[in-house]
Amino acid sequence: MELTRKQESLIRSLYTRHGRRKAGLCVCEGLRAAGELFMRAPELVRFTVATEAAAGELAIPGELHRVPEGKLRELAGTVNSQGILAVAAIPPEPDAAEAPADPFLLAIDRLGDPGNFGTICRTLRAAGLTELWYTKGSVDPYGDKAIRSALGAQFALKLRGFDDLEALRAAAQSYGYPSVWLTDPHGGESCFSAAKLYERSVIVIGGEANGVTPLAGAQRVMIPMPGNYESLNAAQAATIFLFEYVRRTMNTE
Amino acid sequence: MELTRKQESLIRSLYTRHGRRKAGLCVCEGLRAAGELFMRAPELVRFTVATEAAAGELAIPGELHRVPEGKLRELAGTVNSQGILAVAAIPPEPDAAEAPADPFLLAIDRLGDPGNFGTICRTLRAAGLTELWYTKGSVDPYGDKAIRSALGAQFALKLRGFDDLEALRAAAQSYGYPSVWLTDPHGGESCFSAAKLYERSVIVIGGEANGVTPLAGAQRVMIPMPGNYESLNAAQAATIFLFEYVRRTMNTE
Repeated sequence: MELTRKQESLIRSLYTRHGRRKAGLCVCEGLRAAGELFMRAPELVRFTVATEAAAGELAIPGELHRVPEGKLRELAGTVNSQGILAVAAIPPEPDAAEAPADPFLLAIDRLGDPGNFGTICRTLRAAGLTELWYTKGSVDPYGDKAIRSALGAQFALKLRGFDDLEALRAAAQSYGYPSVWLTDPHGGESCFSAAKLYERSVIVIGGEANGVTPLAGAQRVMIPMPGNYESLNAAQAATIFLFEYVRRTMNTE
Repeated sequence: MELTRKQESLIRSLYTRHGRRKAGLCVCEGLRAAGELFMRAPELVRFTVATEAAAGELAIPGELHRVPEGKLRELAGTVNSQGILAVAAIPPEPDAAEAPADPFLLAIDRLGDPGNFGTICRTLRAAGLTELWYTKGSVDPYGDKAIRSALGAQFALKLRGFDDLEALRAAAQSYGYPSVWLTDPHGGESCFSAAKLYERSVIVIGGEANGVTPLAGAQRVMIPMPGNYESLNAAQAATIFLFEYVRRTMNTE
């Protein structure tokens, strides 16, 4: 089927936050990200644009437009689109009535970098968790870069956004996650020894620029750094928290 | 002092691998990366180009050229150069006679992504280690992106490059690191229970595309992934190994 001009200009608009909001759609590029989308949320897919070669790699649900490689490169946000680009509805947030199933919640506060955001999604999924919470002021979870970095893990996770940390905490409490731990490079309990770190808690990781917003009544947790080198990348901090949880779970099984 | 045309064209050439090799120089952008360079290896700095504002933020060793922001943006590889760019000699590798001091060695094999490479440098430094080994076929450690992602941690670490894993292992053995562990998503001992993982060993992390090169006689180590989601990003895998080491060290102190 021919790709219409309208579809082309729609795709282009989805590389801006404004365009995504207006259309309620996002663009998912690359074989692995598109593969994750097709497998986990085929009902969201509106149409797919792919080269002949890439179209043969995946089972593509719904409308498919085969285009030459040059055309795809012209449309895609990256030179490494791997020959495929899917347009999909932005998944709705889980219904407020639906309580999270995870033992603890990972939350990010004002995280601005889409690569970090995507890496956190991907790592969360590898650790076997299902939810990622975030405050507004963080990057758009459905931007093209965030989806590429996450290899489409967004479509396998439940993402919930909140106006600020206060609102996030209130929601967590309502679901039975009463304790909040803020990551802090300067003090607090060590993530390797805090006994209750993962017990019905929310672990909050701050953004690259400003760290975590202060929040009265929250506990502080730190990642010990023998190198006396203050800042770990936010995605690295998230990875340490997630796999310390995996380690503890393994050792008690 | 005026920036000469020759200096300008030198800077431009340093954004290519060929140009860096030819000149034996690299370009280090951003306040934190340049700050690390100035503090850890001031003797390597050839000259610095900075805006008035950025020049006031750091103690800059040697020749400084103050330029308007527009000029710097024109020269720099990123729009977020933060107003500063230093040209520095590529650090020589440690002398072969100088044995590593770390308890174990982290090595990367054919890692192609400069962002991952940089993040690994930064995380290694946070974990208190001092060496990073790599095989040729990995990204150029002194490319502008690798330096930016590492926040200049390259200048605080000892990097040693080898033709392949065989050569890397031979060197490790000669320094008294006899055991090699290859990370493998499909099997081997768990990184959380392998008792000898950090005992005079080399832990090898593979590249994004092909994983680790097979190596006869090496042991395999895996990161358990409850999410049944095969691939962690290489930098996340490195982070898990590095901070599992930190955790074990903390718990025995």
